[in-house]
Amino acid sequence: MTEQEVGKGRIDLVLVHYPVINKNGEKIGSAVTNLDLHDISRAAKTFGVGSLYVVTPYSDQQELFQELLDHWLKGHGAKYNAKRGEALSLVHICDDLDQVFAEVTEKWKQRPTVLATCAQEKHPAVWPYQMVRRKIAEGECFLILFGTAWGLAQEVIEAGDGILPPIAGSGSYNHLSVRSAAAIVLDRLLGTGEA
Amino acid sequence: MTEQEVGKGRIDLVLVHYPVINKNGEKIGSAVTNLDLHDISRAAKTFGVGSLYVVTPYSDQQELFQELLDHWLKGHGAKYNAKRGEALSLVHICDDLDQVFAEVTEKWKQRPTVLATCAQEKHPAVWPYQMVRRKIAEGECFLILFGTAWGLAQEVIEAGDGILPPIAGSGSYNHLSVRSAAAIVLDRLLGTGEA
Repeated sequence: MTEQEVGKGRIDLVLVHYPVINKNGEKIGSAVTNLDLHDISRAAKTFGVGSLYVVTPYSDQQELFQELLDHWLKGHGAKYNAKRGEALSLVHICDDLDQVFAEVTEKWKQRPTVLATCAQEKHPAVWPYQMVRRKIAEGECFLILFGTAWGLAQEVIEAGDGILPPIAGSGSYNHLSVRSAAAIVLDRLLGTGEA
Repeated sequence: MTEQEVGKGRIDLVLVHYPVINKNGEKIGSAVTNLDLHDISRAAKTFGVGSLYVVTPYSDQQELFQELLDHWLKGHGAKYNAKRGEALSLVHICDDLDQVFAEVTEKWKQRPTVLATCAQEKHPAVWPYQMVRRKIAEGECFLILFGTAWGLAQEVIEAGDGILPPIAGSGSYNHLSVRSAAAIVLDRLLGTGEA
């Protein structure tokens, strides 16, 4: 697939496993989840995202998931279902956010606008989806951060340029999985509209 | 949470494990996946869906997943994270689609409009999201069918009243997980709009 074919959006995703918070709001590192990588990379590939950076500082986790990627990209999985490899080829495992920032800045030759996602509006700069969608279409570079566990640590949210609005349903329950949240955010920012 | 609070939409979901197709287009029964139930019930709860019917004819699968539900609804899981039980309380395990149709028709005192989801436009009646969204808001009952594995068998798609448009990105890759697809469909039909 050519870059032309997948669209011109210069947008990358980050799935953060450290620092995130647990259900008591304490800062932790979470374990990488197999299905997060599959689901979010498949959605990323569908919507024309450049890369999915997976941040974990733990070398055992990095090795385990590099083996998983190799299975689908080069091993038996590549023969069984090539579509998985197409999506997982977007995944890059990184030690920390600084490494991600360095890589995307190198790739786009400029620092992207960094937006965090969270279930509450905890940031003075909330960027409406329509506005970000328009800026992506105009060629602006974006890096969108997703937290695992109970969400991104406050220091990560504050280090970005703003947040995307929380995804709200009609009631007070807002406990989407990060897989569901990522799919909805990508549809809002990059979907071809409601046919 | 009162019915008022979660909205007035009379919409239910079905996650079908038989009959679905495998990657060769052959009719099969698939295994129920733990994370499907968690992710889709959490999205359903967030967007005010009535019930998530899980269709599998296999009694061992039914027993296994009833144990899983009991864990989160009544067992240790209910103490560990009550939010999971809130979502999983929407799940009802059924033998087949006929049982689902009977239960929802009894619940709403009318047969709902049945729409299938699929990755290709294989049906003469494609119902645009905006139209379905408006009809839900007006009080019409809907039952939305999602297929596991490589998607719903053709006979299921044809038995409904129509299909929702496939979710398209900017390229030719359209291999979203059923978890991602369900999240996007719910946001398009029931989301409170782009804040």
